[in-house]
Amino acid sequence: MKLYKANIIFTREKEQFEVVEHGYVGVENGRVVGLASNADAFGEDVEDVVDYGDCLLIPAMNDMHVHAPQYRNQAISMDLELLPWLKQYTFPEEAKYKDTHYAERMYSRFVHDLWRFGTMRTVAFATIHLESTRLLMELFREAGMGAMVGKVDMDRNAIDALHVRVDEAMARNEAIIAEWNDPDGLVKPIITPRFIPSCTPAMLRACGELAQRYQLPVQSHLSENASEVAWVRELEPESRNYGDAYDRYGLFGQTPTIMAHCVFTAGDELELMTRRNVMVAHCPTSNLNLGSGIAPIRSFLNSGVKVGLGSDISGGNDLSIMRMMVYAIQMSKLYYNHDKSKHFLTLSEAFWIATKSAGSFFGKVGSFEPGYEFDALVIDDSDLNHDNYSLIHRLERFIYMGDDRHIAVRFCRGCEIPEPRIRD
Amino acid sequence: MKLYKANIIFTREKEQFEVVEHGYVGVENGRVVGLASNADAFGEDVEDVVDYGDCLLIPAMNDMHVHAPQYRNQAISMDLELLPWLKQYTFPEEAKYKDTHYAERMYSRFVHDLWRFGTMRTVAFATIHLESTRLLMELFREAGMGAMVGKVDMDRNAIDALHVRVDEAMARNEAIIAEWNDPDGLVKPIITPRFIPSCTPAMLRACGELAQRYQLPVQSHLSENASEVAWVRELEPESRNYGDAYDRYGLFGQTPTIMAHCVFTAGDELELMTRRNVMVAHCPTSNLNLGSGIAPIRSFLNSGVKVGLGSDISGGNDLSIMRMMVYAIQMSKLYYNHDKSKHFLTLSEAFWIATKSAGSFFGKVGSFEPGYEFDALVIDDSDLNHDNYSLIHRLERFIYMGDDRHIAVRFCRGCEIPEPRIRD
Repeated sequence: MKLYKANIIFTREKEQFEVVEHGYVGVENGRVVGLASNADAFGEDVEDVVDYGDCLLIPAMNDMHVHAPQYRNQAISMDLELLPWLKQYTFPEEAKYKDTHYAERMYSRFVHDLWRFGTMRTVAFATIHLESTRLLMELFREAGMGAMVGKVDMDRNAIDALHVRVDEAMARNEAIIAEWNDPDGLVKPIITPRFIPSCTPAMLRACGELAQRYQLPVQSHLSENASEVAWVRELEPESRNYGDAYDRYGLFGQTPTIMAHCVFTAGDELELMTRRNVMVAHCPTSNLNLGSGIAPIRSFLNSGVKVGLGSDISGGNDLSIMRMMVYAIQMSKLYYNHDKSKHFLTLSEAFWIATKSAGSFFGKVGSFEPGYEFDALVIDDSDLNHDNYSLIHRLERFIYMGDDRHIAVRFCRGCEIPEPRIRD
Repeated sequence: MKLYKANIIFTREKEQFEVVEHGYVGVENGRVVGLASNADAFGEDVEDVVDYGDCLLIPAMNDMHVHAPQYRNQAISMDLELLPWLKQYTFPEEAKYKDTHYAERMYSRFVHDLWRFGTMRTVAFATIHLESTRLLMELFREAGMGAMVGKVDMDRNAIDALHVRVDEAMARNEAIIAEWNDPDGLVKPIITPRFIPSCTPAMLRACGELAQRYQLPVQSHLSENASEVAWVRELEPESRNYGDAYDRYGLFGQTPTIMAHCVFTAGDELELMTRRNVMVAHCPTSNLNLGSGIAPIRSFLNSGVKVGLGSDISGGNDLSIMRMMVYAIQMSKLYYNHDKSKHFLTLSEAFWIATKSAGSFFGKVGSFEPGYEFDALVIDDSDLNHDNYSLIHRLERFIYMGDDRHIAVRFCRGCEIPEPRIRD
């Protein structure tokens, strides 16, 4: 067993932080054995003790929704409205990933930058292309970072270069599944119909069948903006709501499912999400940049719907999940300013959402309770801690005003993760 | 004359960027002489050419509302509501500035961090204390950075340690004015009644008289949140609105005036601001963190009211004015999502607000037009510019995803500003 010594902070429950000042976490076979204030508590079996001094030790970050092939478009042309932005920037960019050399250059930077910001597990959209999707998975594996990577399925309403026939799309999925579907793997496939408007019923049905055949997780977009919701109502008139449309194709909780945005999810749809245990990937910056609105995060928590945070590059402009916590709190303050019956998100709640709640999509990830995989960040906040702040205030300052410079060491599944190589 | 060569970007008008690719700016006696694509255009009078290669050169940032003595409280206890936060954190912290050693330690860090984020001009609240306010002004002067610093006047509704009798408060103001009221000074006093609820009518009257006697600018808070607005209505029943209350004491445009927040400014109050040429210091992060709401920034622009951006530490959590631009744009998207008759803030508008519009409060500051003081930042964005982005996209990426690491050189009034010393 290996011991790591630092100021340990995590959330078992969303209501409060667990803190062990100058404490030890014992790690064996990639998993947490336990926590203690004293090294002796771990008995004879200790091989090594790594002392991180006065640093903080927190669970690593999870990014629950991000478009890897939109990496190049991060933070450009944010003034455009959704439709011209998709046509002029998003779709043409994704079409470039037919070229694996281009994909390697961009994807290696993308994985590197996730690392920079301490994101050790990612649920990502790739593109429709088999080879570059494989490459992205390989880059995650080489980095030692966890990921669910979705080869995107779509066959309508985009551009020809991104439309793939159902049989060809499924053949590509099968190829990836054959190679990557290891239950213990850090990097896994996830079934990824882009969203209802870009998939014919035949495509959606095939995706649902594939997910159930291989018991694979599913990701997509749900109720992001008002005109999209109206469009889906036209496309799927028999469905009671947008979520129900996915449900009818076996894509809404029949296997573990995560849906990005859910800004307009309420009523029947919220009830169905709760029943089906569908997770929300809350993407506050993206929802602001695209003028979508604010997701009702307290309603999700009150209903028992699991939530995680997503950077949603390049709708979102920021890859830092710490920053997503800040935005999630700020947006909830604005939202619940108009509905005082509910309380805004607290710091411990936002932290719990980003770590333990999101992490549950990957198994036992996101906490330091015994049995959890040891995904962790060592935070050296010495320049922020110039005046004897409490440990919780130090964490809060790191989240609200820190950046990647404060992340000194990163662990995923018990291994220290070195800086991934950028391939230019 | 000295020439600086780089990719020059600034806003003459809010609707668009002016761009001179690999251009030259000529600077003499601290002011811009002109811009050209060719060094020959400046004639014989050139002493020196500094080549910043492929870097961007943009006007420096202006922070139009920030509480210097709340520096220690930046990014802590953001979950608290306004009143307990003031009582437990803000007021006790400000009371510490009776101790000039404490003030020196914190203020030197504050000035240092403004420098880090490229803020070369600041409109700051200090505290009620004469000596530590002098010290803050001295630190700005030593750094070579521009500032209007307000010794705060307040005599009710806070804590005893922060209440000062009107005659004593005015004596302290007179002492600062005697020492610092140089029309050409980079660092100047600004009359600073905290806000109506913390100033008796006698204090407000004395502040207004002082401002007019010495023709000094005025700063305060206006219409930040709904309960504050209601409170002011009770305190000043004869006034038609919150702005009118200041106006009746000679504190609303009789001399150059800047008011922070203005979230609830509309109708009569907006009309009065327009007529009196009162500037708004828009503080979007603070308004989110404190649950105040969103200021109607398009209404200000349409009415011809000048706007600048403020970090409002420690209601705000972030000292970066680049980040304030991003929040201002994002908040405007949310706001005007509900009122499609008006358009959200564009990138060039946010940039213009932060530079030329805000800078006008200091004179000819915030642009590279001839005669403007040369306040500038050299942006080395080479790590962000990995794929031949356009100059405007490079600027956008710096604003949306860059940080202080990308600011290579800072100028204020024509002088390169070295890193200020932190005094511990």
